[in-house]
Amino acid sequence: MSRGLFVTLEGLDGSGKTTQLKRLAIWMEKRGIEPVVTRQPGGTSTGDRIRALLLDSRSAGLAPMTEMALMFADRAQAIAEVIEPALAGGKTVLCDRFTDSTEAYQGGGRALGSQLVLEMHRLICGGLQPDLTVLLLPSLDRSLERARRRNDRVAEKDGPDESRFEREQDAFYRRVWEKYREIARRDTERVVAVEGDLSIDDVHEQIVEAVSERLVMAHSR
Amino acid sequence: MSRGLFVTLEGLDGSGKTTQLKRLAIWMEKRGIEPVVTRQPGGTSTGDRIRALLLDSRSAGLAPMTEMALMFADRAQAIAEVIEPALAGGKTVLCDRFTDSTEAYQGGGRALGSQLVLEMHRLICGGLQPDLTVLLLPSLDRSLERARRRNDRVAEKDGPDESRFEREQDAFYRRVWEKYREIARRDTERVVAVEGDLSIDDVHEQIVEAVSERLVMAHSR
Repeated sequence: MSRGLFVTLEGLDGSGKTTQLKRLAIWMEKRGIEPVVTRQPGGTSTGDRIRALLLDSRSAGLAPMTEMALMFADRAQAIAEVIEPALAGGKTVLCDRFTDSTEAYQGGGRALGSQLVLEMHRLICGGLQPDLTVLLLPSLDRSLERARRRNDRVAEKDGPDESRFEREQDAFYRRVWEKYREIARRDTERVVAVEGDLSIDDVHEQIVEAVSERLVMAHSR
Repeated sequence: MSRGLFVTLEGLDGSGKTTQLKRLAIWMEKRGIEPVVTRQPGGTSTGDRIRALLLDSRSAGLAPMTEMALMFADRAQAIAEVIEPALAGGKTVLCDRFTDSTEAYQGGGRALGSQLVLEMHRLICGGLQPDLTVLLLPSLDRSLERARRRNDRVAEKDGPDESRFEREQDAFYRRVWEKYREIARRDTERVVAVEGDLSIDDVHEQIVEAVSERLVMAHSR
Protein backbone atom coordinates (compact mmCIF):
# COMPACT_ATOMS: atom_id res chain seq x y z
CA MET A 1 0.00 0.00 0.00
CA SER A 2 1.38 3.46 -0.81
CA ARG A 3 1.77 5.98 1.95
CA GLY A 4 -1.02 8.55 2.43
CA LEU A 5 -0.79 12.25 1.66
CA PHE A 6 -0.08 14.56 4.60
CA VAL A 7 -1.71 17.99 4.17
CA THR A 8 -1.55 20.78 6.76
CA LEU A 9 -3.47 24.05 6.92
CA GLU A 10 -1.78 27.06 8.39
CA GLY A 11 -2.59 30.69 9.08
CA LEU A 12 -3.41 33.22 11.78
CA ASP A 13 -6.45 32.91 14.02
CA GLY A 14 -9.45 34.00 11.95
CA SER A 15 -7.78 33.32 8.60
CA GLY A 16 -10.53 30.83 7.72
CA LYS A 17 -8.56 27.60 8.26
CA THR A 18 -11.35 25.70 9.94
CA THR A 19 -13.95 26.63 7.29
CA GLN A 20 -11.57 25.71 4.49
CA LEU A 21 -10.54 22.45 6.15
CA LYS A 22 -14.18 21.37 6.36
CA ARG A 23 -14.84 22.29 2.72
CA LEU A 24 -11.70 20.46 1.61
CA ALA A 25 -12.72 17.35 3.56
CA ILE A 26 -16.16 17.40 1.89
CA TRP A 27 -14.56 17.89 -1.53
CA MET A 28 -12.34 14.84 -0.88
CA GLU A 29 -15.18 12.68 0.41
CA LYS A 30 -17.13 13.38 -2.78
CA ARG A 31 -14.15 11.95 -4.66
CA GLY A 32 -13.97 8.78 -2.56
CA ILE A 33 -11.11 9.92 -0.33
CA GLU A 34 -11.88 9.55 3.37
CA PRO A 35 -9.41 11.92 5.03
CA VAL A 36 -8.37 11.69 8.66
CA VAL A 37 -9.03 15.21 9.96
CA THR A 38 -7.17 16.39 13.04
CA ARG A 39 -5.84 19.53 14.69
CA GLN A 40 -2.96 20.78 16.80
CA PRO A 41 -2.83 21.25 19.67
CA GLY A 42 -5.38 18.54 20.46
CA GLY A 43 -6.60 15.63 18.40
CA THR A 44 -5.73 12.98 21.03
CA SER A 45 -6.98 12.71 24.62
CA THR A 46 -3.52 13.65 25.89
CA GLY A 47 -3.42 16.47 23.32
CA ASP A 48 -6.76 17.82 24.49
CA ARG A 49 -5.40 18.02 28.03
CA ILE A 50 -2.27 19.79 26.79
CA ARG A 51 -4.46 22.15 24.74
CA ALA A 52 -6.52 22.98 27.84
CA LEU A 53 -3.30 23.72 29.74
CA LEU A 54 -2.09 26.00 26.92
CA LEU A 55 -5.33 27.93 26.50
CA ASP A 56 -6.26 28.22 30.16
CA SER A 57 -5.71 31.75 31.45
CA ARG A 58 -4.57 30.21 34.74
CA SER A 59 -1.49 29.32 32.68
CA ALA A 60 -0.96 32.98 31.81
CA GLY A 61 2.48 32.82 33.44
CA LEU A 62 3.57 30.11 31.02
CA ALA A 63 7.16 30.71 29.90
CA PRO A 64 7.53 30.83 26.06
CA MET A 65 9.90 27.85 26.26
CA THR A 66 7.31 25.85 28.23
CA GLU A 67 4.65 26.76 25.67
CA MET A 68 6.87 25.55 22.85
CA ALA A 69 7.78 22.29 24.61
CA LEU A 70 4.08 21.62 25.28
CA MET A 71 3.30 22.18 21.58
CA PHE A 72 5.86 19.54 20.69
CA ALA A 73 4.64 17.14 23.40
CA ASP A 74 1.20 17.41 21.83
CA ARG A 75 2.68 16.91 18.36
CA ALA A 76 4.69 13.86 19.40
CA GLN A 77 1.52 12.22 20.69
CA ALA A 78 -0.50 13.13 17.59
CA ILE A 79 2.21 11.72 15.32
CA ALA A 80 2.45 8.45 17.28
CA GLU A 81 -1.28 7.97 17.81
CA VAL A 82 -2.97 9.48 14.74
CA ILE A 83 -0.80 10.83 11.94
CA GLU A 84 1.81 8.10 11.40
CA PRO A 85 -0.63 5.16 11.63
CA ALA A 86 -2.98 6.91 9.18
CA LEU A 87 -0.25 7.76 6.66
CA ALA A 88 1.24 4.27 6.97
CA GLY A 89 -2.25 2.88 6.29
CA GLY A 90 -2.47 4.89 3.08
CA LYS A 91 -4.92 7.48 4.43
CA THR A 92 -4.86 11.16 3.57
CA VAL A 93 -4.35 13.27 6.71
CA LEU A 94 -5.66 16.85 6.96
CA CYS A 95 -4.18 18.63 9.94
CA ASP A 96 -5.22 22.05 11.24
CA ARG A 97 -1.81 23.52 12.22
CA PHE A 98 1.55 21.74 12.49
CA THR A 99 5.15 22.83 13.15
CA ASP A 100 4.78 25.97 10.98
CA SER A 101 2.37 27.28 13.64
CA THR A 102 4.97 26.74 16.34
CA GLU A 103 7.58 28.48 14.21
CA ALA A 104 5.22 31.40 13.49
CA TYR A 105 3.70 31.80 16.98
CA GLN A 106 6.46 30.73 19.35
CA GLY A 107 9.43 31.28 17.01
CA GLY A 108 8.11 34.57 15.56
CA GLY A 109 5.40 35.85 17.90
CA ARG A 110 7.16 34.94 21.13
CA ALA A 111 10.56 35.66 19.55
CA LEU A 112 12.16 32.28 20.34
CA GLY A 113 13.49 32.22 16.77
CA SER A 114 13.12 29.74 13.92
CA GLN A 115 16.28 27.77 14.57
CA LEU A 116 15.19 26.53 17.99
CA VAL A 117 11.78 25.44 16.69
CA LEU A 118 13.28 23.69 13.68
CA GLU A 119 15.80 21.85 15.88
CA MET A 120 12.97 20.78 18.17
CA HIS A 121 11.06 19.56 15.13
CA ARG A 122 14.04 17.51 14.02
CA LEU A 123 14.45 15.95 17.48
CA ILE A 124 10.79 15.32 18.27
CA CYS A 125 9.18 14.76 14.85
CA GLY A 126 12.09 13.05 13.10
CA GLY A 127 11.81 13.39 9.37
CA LEU A 128 8.05 13.97 9.22
CA GLN A 129 7.11 16.85 6.90
CA PRO A 130 3.77 17.59 5.26
CA ASP A 131 3.58 16.78 1.54
CA LEU A 132 1.61 19.98 1.18
CA THR A 133 1.03 22.94 3.46
CA VAL A 134 -1.70 25.40 2.53
CA LEU A 135 -0.99 28.74 4.14
CA LEU A 136 -3.92 31.15 4.32
CA LEU A 137 -2.47 34.61 4.41
CA PRO A 138 -4.95 37.48 4.09
CA SER A 139 -3.42 40.96 4.20
CA LEU A 140 -1.96 41.99 7.55
CA ASP A 141 -4.71 44.61 8.06
CA ARG A 142 -7.47 42.10 7.43
CA SER A 143 -5.74 39.51 9.64
CA LEU A 144 -5.45 41.92 12.56
CA GLU A 145 -9.05 43.07 12.14
CA ARG A 146 -10.33 39.48 12.15
CA ALA A 147 -8.20 38.54 15.14
CA ARG A 148 -9.60 41.50 17.09
CA ARG A 149 -13.21 40.72 16.11
CA ARG A 150 -12.71 37.12 17.11
CA ASN A 151 -11.24 38.10 20.46
CA ASP A 152 -14.25 40.29 21.23
CA ARG A 153 -16.63 37.48 20.33
CA VAL A 154 -14.76 34.88 22.36
CA ALA A 155 -14.49 37.21 25.33
CA GLU A 156 -18.26 37.89 25.22
CA LYS A 157 -19.30 34.29 24.85
CA ASP A 158 -16.87 32.32 26.97
CA GLY A 159 -15.35 34.86 29.29
CA PRO A 160 -11.62 35.38 29.25
CA ASP A 161 -10.60 31.78 30.01
CA GLU A 162 -10.42 30.29 26.53
CA SER A 163 -8.86 33.30 24.90
CA ARG A 164 -5.33 33.53 26.17
CA PHE A 165 -3.78 33.46 22.71
CA GLU A 166 -6.48 35.77 21.36
CA ARG A 167 -5.68 38.49 23.86
CA GLU A 168 -2.25 39.02 22.36
CA GLN A 169 -1.39 42.41 20.96
CA ASP A 170 -1.24 43.50 17.33
CA ALA A 171 2.55 43.53 17.50
CA PHE A 172 2.50 39.84 18.33
CA TYR A 173 0.23 39.03 15.36
CA ARG A 174 2.39 41.11 13.08
CA ARG A 175 5.43 39.02 14.02
CA VAL A 176 3.43 35.82 13.44
CA TRP A 177 2.22 37.05 10.05
CA GLU A 178 5.74 37.99 9.02
CA LYS A 179 7.16 34.64 10.11
CA TYR A 180 4.49 32.85 8.07
CA ARG A 181 5.55 34.84 5.00
CA GLU A 182 9.18 33.95 5.67
CA ILE A 183 8.29 30.24 5.84
CA ALA A 184 6.39 30.47 2.53
CA ARG A 185 9.35 32.16 0.85
CA ARG A 186 11.75 29.54 2.25
CA ASP A 187 9.80 26.30 1.65
CA THR A 188 8.40 27.01 -1.80
CA GLU A 189 8.01 23.32 -2.70
CA ARG A 190 5.99 22.34 0.34
CA VAL A 191 4.07 25.54 1.07
CA VAL A 192 1.32 26.95 -1.16
CA ALA A 193 0.41 30.40 0.11
CA VAL A 194 -3.09 31.67 -0.62
CA GLU A 195 -2.47 35.38 -0.24
CA GLY A 196 -4.72 38.40 -0.33
CA ASP A 197 -8.30 39.09 0.71
CA LEU A 198 -10.24 36.58 -1.36
CA SER A 199 -13.75 35.18 -1.05
CA ILE A 200 -14.25 31.81 0.68
CA ASP A 201 -15.06 30.25 -2.71
CA ASP A 202 -11.92 31.64 -4.34
CA VAL A 203 -9.74 30.37 -1.52
CA HIS A 204 -11.40 26.95 -1.72
CA GLU A 205 -10.71 26.83 -5.44
CA GLN A 206 -7.02 27.56 -4.96
CA ILE A 207 -6.75 24.94 -2.23
CA VAL A 208 -8.47 22.32 -4.37
CA GLU A 209 -6.08 23.09 -7.21
CA ALA A 210 -3.01 22.63 -5.00
CA VAL A 211 -4.37 19.46 -3.41
CA SER A 212 -5.38 17.96 -6.76
CA GLU A 213 -1.89 18.48 -8.09
CA ARG A 214 -0.35 16.67 -5.10
CA LEU A 215 -2.87 13.85 -5.32
CA VAL A 216 -1.96 13.31 -8.98
CA MET A 217 1.74 13.42 -8.10
CA ALA A 218 1.23 10.92 -5.27
CA HIS A 219 -0.76 8.67 -7.58
CA SER A 220 1.97 8.62 -10.19
CA ARG A 221 4.71 7.88 -7.64
CA MET B 1 25.46 39.18 45.10
CA SER B 2 27.01 35.88 44.12
CA ARG B 3 24.93 33.25 42.40
CA GLY B 4 23.38 30.51 44.53
CA LEU B 5 24.39 26.87 44.54
CA PHE B 6 22.27 24.50 42.45
CA VAL B 7 22.10 21.01 43.95
CA THR B 8 20.05 18.14 42.50
CA LEU B 9 19.22 14.74 43.98
CA GLU B 10 18.90 11.78 41.69
CA GLY B 11 18.12 8.10 41.94
CA LEU B 12 15.51 5.44 41.29
CA ASP B 13 12.10 5.47 42.93
CA GLY B 14 12.60 4.27 46.52
CA SER B 15 16.29 5.18 46.62
CA GLY B 16 15.63 7.52 49.56
CA LYS B 17 15.89 10.83 47.69
CA THR B 18 12.98 12.49 49.46
CA THR B 19 14.16 11.50 52.95
CA GLN B 20 17.68 12.66 52.21
CA LEU B 21 16.51 15.92 50.64
CA LYS B 22 14.56 16.76 53.80
CA ARG B 23 17.52 15.95 56.04
CA LEU B 24 19.85 17.99 53.87
CA ALA B 25 17.46 20.96 53.97
CA ILE B 26 17.32 20.76 57.79
CA TRP B 27 21.10 20.48 57.95
CA MET B 28 21.38 23.65 55.82
CA GLU B 29 18.80 25.58 57.80
CA LYS B 30 20.73 24.88 61.00
CA ARG B 31 23.71 26.56 59.31
CA GLY B 32 21.72 29.64 58.31
CA ILE B 33 21.19 28.63 54.67
CA GLU B 34 17.53 28.80 53.63
CA PRO B 35 17.38 26.53 50.58
CA VAL B 36 14.64 26.70 47.95
CA VAL B 37 13.39 23.10 47.80
CA THR B 38 11.62 21.93 44.67
CA ARG B 39 10.99 18.83 42.62
CA GLN B 40 10.53 17.68 39.03
CA PRO B 41 8.12 17.13 37.54
CA GLY B 42 6.06 19.63 39.52
CA GLY B 43 7.12 22.54 41.68
CA THR B 44 5.04 25.13 39.80
CA SER B 45 1.29 25.20 39.24
CA THR B 46 1.83 24.42 35.54
CA GLY B 47 4.32 21.73 36.53
CA ASP B 48 1.82 20.13 38.90
CA ARG B 49 -0.67 19.88 36.02
CA ILE B 50 2.00 18.35 33.78
CA ARG B 51 2.93 15.94 36.59
CA ALA B 52 -0.71 14.86 36.92
CA LEU B 53 -0.86 14.26 33.17
CA LEU B 54 2.33 12.17 33.33
CA LEU B 55 1.30 10.04 36.30
CA ASP B 56 -2.34 9.58 35.39
CA SER B 57 -3.00 6.06 34.18
CA ARG B 58 -5.46 7.54 31.65
CA SER B 59 -2.25 8.67 29.97
CA ALA B 60 -1.01 5.09 29.78
CA GLY B 61 -0.86 5.41 25.99
CA LEU B 62 1.62 8.26 26.26
CA ALA B 63 4.33 7.94 23.59
CA PRO B 64 7.89 7.97 25.06
CA MET B 65 8.63 11.09 22.99
CA THR B 66 5.57 12.85 24.44
CA GLU B 67 6.64 11.88 27.93
CA MET B 68 10.10 13.32 27.34
CA ALA B 69 8.77 16.58 25.84
CA LEU B 70 6.41 16.98 28.82
CA MET B 71 9.33 16.50 31.22
CA PHE B 72 11.17 19.35 29.47
CA ALA B 73 8.05 21.55 29.37
CA ASP B 74 7.84 21.12 33.14
CA ARG B 75 11.56 21.82 33.49
CA ALA B 76 11.40 24.97 31.33
CA GLN B 77 8.68 26.37 33.59
CA ALA B 78 10.54 25.43 36.79
CA ILE B 79 13.71 27.10 35.50
CA ALA B 80 11.89 30.31 34.50
CA GLU B 81 9.66 30.54 37.55
CA VAL B 82 11.66 29.03 40.43
CA ILE B 83 15.24 27.91 39.78
CA GLU B 84 16.77 30.83 37.83
CA PRO B 85 15.24 33.59 39.98
CA ALA B 86 16.40 31.79 43.15
CA LEU B 87 19.97 31.22 41.88
CA ALA B 88 20.17 34.76 40.56
CA GLY B 89 19.05 35.96 44.00
CA GLY B 90 21.91 34.06 45.64
CA LYS B 91 19.73 31.28 47.08
CA THR B 92 20.73 27.62 47.28
CA VAL B 93 18.33 25.44 45.27
CA LEU B 94 17.72 21.78 46.20
CA CYS B 95 15.90 20.00 43.40
CA ASP B 96 14.47 16.47 43.58
CA ARG B 97 15.29 15.19 40.06
CA PHE B 98 16.49 17.18 37.03
CA THR B 99 17.67 16.28 33.51
CA ASP B 100 19.60 13.20 34.73
CA SER B 101 16.22 11.65 35.56
CA THR B 102 15.02 12.26 32.03
CA GLU B 103 18.23 10.76 30.66
CA ALA B 104 17.92 7.73 32.95
CA TYR B 105 14.16 7.11 32.65
CA GLN B 106 13.30 8.26 29.13
CA GLY B 107 16.78 7.99 27.60
CA GLY B 108 17.64 4.66 29.30
CA GLY B 109 14.39 3.12 30.56
CA ARG B 110 12.33 4.04 27.52
CA ALA B 111 15.34 3.59 25.25
CA LEU B 112 15.19 7.03 23.59
CA GLY B 113 18.95 7.30 24.09
CA SER B 114 21.14 9.85 25.85
CA GLN B 115 21.91 11.99 22.83
CA LEU B 116 18.31 13.04 22.25
CA VAL B 117 17.81 13.95 25.90
CA LEU B 118 21.07 15.91 26.05
CA GLU B 119 20.18 17.82 22.87
CA MET B 120 16.77 18.62 24.34
CA HIS B 121 18.49 19.83 27.49
CA ARG B 122 20.75 22.11 25.47
CA LEU B 123 17.77 23.57 23.54
CA ILE B 124 15.33 23.93 26.43
CA CYS B 125 17.55 24.52 29.47
CA GLY B 126 20.35 26.46 27.79
CA GLY B 127 23.54 26.25 29.76
CA LEU B 128 21.96 25.44 33.13
CA GLN B 129 23.74 22.60 34.94
CA PRO B 130 23.67 21.71 38.64
CA ASP B 131 26.80 22.65 40.58
CA LEU B 132 26.41 19.32 42.36
CA THR B 133 24.30 16.25 41.70
CA VAL B 134 24.00 13.67 44.44
CA LEU B 135 23.11 10.32 42.91
CA LEU B 136 21.73 7.73 45.34
CA LEU B 137 22.56 4.37 43.88
CA PRO B 138 21.85 1.35 46.08
CA SER B 139 22.68 -2.04 44.56
CA LEU B 140 20.48 -3.07 41.65
CA ASP B 141 18.91 -5.88 43.73
CA ARG B 142 18.02 -3.53 46.56
CA SER B 143 16.71 -0.92 44.08
CA LEU B 144 14.43 -3.42 42.37
CA GLU B 145 13.17 -4.76 45.69
CA ARG B 146 12.34 -1.26 46.96
CA ALA B 147 10.67 -0.31 43.70
CA ARG B 148 8.47 -3.42 43.90
CA ARG B 149 7.59 -2.83 47.56
CA ARG B 150 6.72 0.75 46.78
CA ASN B 151 4.51 -0.29 43.88
CA ASP B 152 2.58 -2.68 46.08
CA ARG B 153 2.08 -0.01 48.73
CA VAL B 154 0.97 2.62 46.22
CA ALA B 155 -1.36 0.16 44.51
CA GLU B 156 -2.94 -0.75 47.86
CA LYS B 157 -3.35 2.79 49.08
CA ASP B 158 -4.27 4.81 46.04
CA GLY B 159 -5.39 2.27 43.50
CA PRO B 160 -3.57 2.03 40.21
CA ASP B 161 -4.02 5.67 39.14
CA GLU B 162 -0.96 7.30 40.68
CA SER B 163 1.42 4.49 39.93
CA ARG B 164 1.93 4.44 36.21
CA PHE B 165 5.71 4.77 36.44
CA GLU B 166 5.82 2.39 39.39
CA ARG B 167 4.15 -0.39 37.46
CA GLU B 168 7.08 -0.68 35.08
CA GLN B 169 8.93 -3.93 34.84
CA ASP B 170 12.27 -4.87 36.38
CA ALA B 171 13.90 -4.68 32.95
CA PHE B 172 12.93 -1.03 32.76
CA TYR B 173 14.43 -0.26 36.18
CA ARG B 174 17.57 -2.12 35.27
CA ARG B 175 18.04 0.14 32.22
CA VAL B 176 17.42 3.22 34.38
CA TRP B 177 19.93 2.02 36.99
CA GLU B 178 22.54 1.35 34.34
CA LYS B 179 22.03 4.74 32.70
CA TYR B 180 22.49 6.44 36.08
CA ARG B 181 25.79 4.62 36.53
CA GLU B 182 26.84 5.71 33.05
CA ILE B 183 26.05 9.36 33.88
CA ALA B 184 28.10 9.11 37.10
CA ARG B 185 31.07 7.69 35.21
CA ARG B 186 30.79 10.40 32.54
CA ASP B 187 30.20 13.53 34.66
CA THR B 188 32.65 12.86 37.49
CA GLU B 189 33.02 16.54 38.39
CA ARG B 190 29.35 17.28 38.79
CA VAL B 191 27.99 13.94 40.03
CA VAL B 192 28.75 12.44 43.43
CA ALA B 193 27.42 8.89 43.51
CA VAL B 194 26.52 7.43 46.88
CA GLU B 195 26.70 3.76 46.01
CA GLY B 196 25.90 0.61 47.93
CA ASP B 197 23.37 -0.34 50.57
CA LEU B 198 24.12 2.13 53.34
CA SER B 199 22.11 3.28 56.34
CA ILE B 200 20.14 6.55 56.12
CA ASP B 201 22.66 8.16 58.48
CA ASP B 202 25.65 7.05 56.43
CA VAL B 203 24.11 8.36 53.22
CA HIS B 204 23.30 11.67 54.91
CA GLU B 205 26.90 11.96 56.07
CA GLN B 206 28.25 11.44 52.54
CA ILE B 207 25.80 13.98 51.13
CA VAL B 208 26.73 16.56 53.76
CA GLU B 209 30.39 16.05 52.96
CA ALA B 210 29.85 16.61 49.23
CA VAL B 211 27.62 19.64 49.80
CA SER B 212 30.02 21.19 52.33
CA GLU B 213 32.85 20.93 49.86
CA ARG B 214 30.82 22.72 47.16
CA LEU B 215 29.65 25.39 49.58
CA VAL B 216 33.27 26.12 50.50
CA MET B 217 34.23 26.20 46.81
CA ALA B 218 31.31 28.55 46.05
CA HIS B 219 32.31 30.77 48.95
CA SER B 220 35.88 31.10 47.74
CA ARG B 221 34.85 31.92 44.15
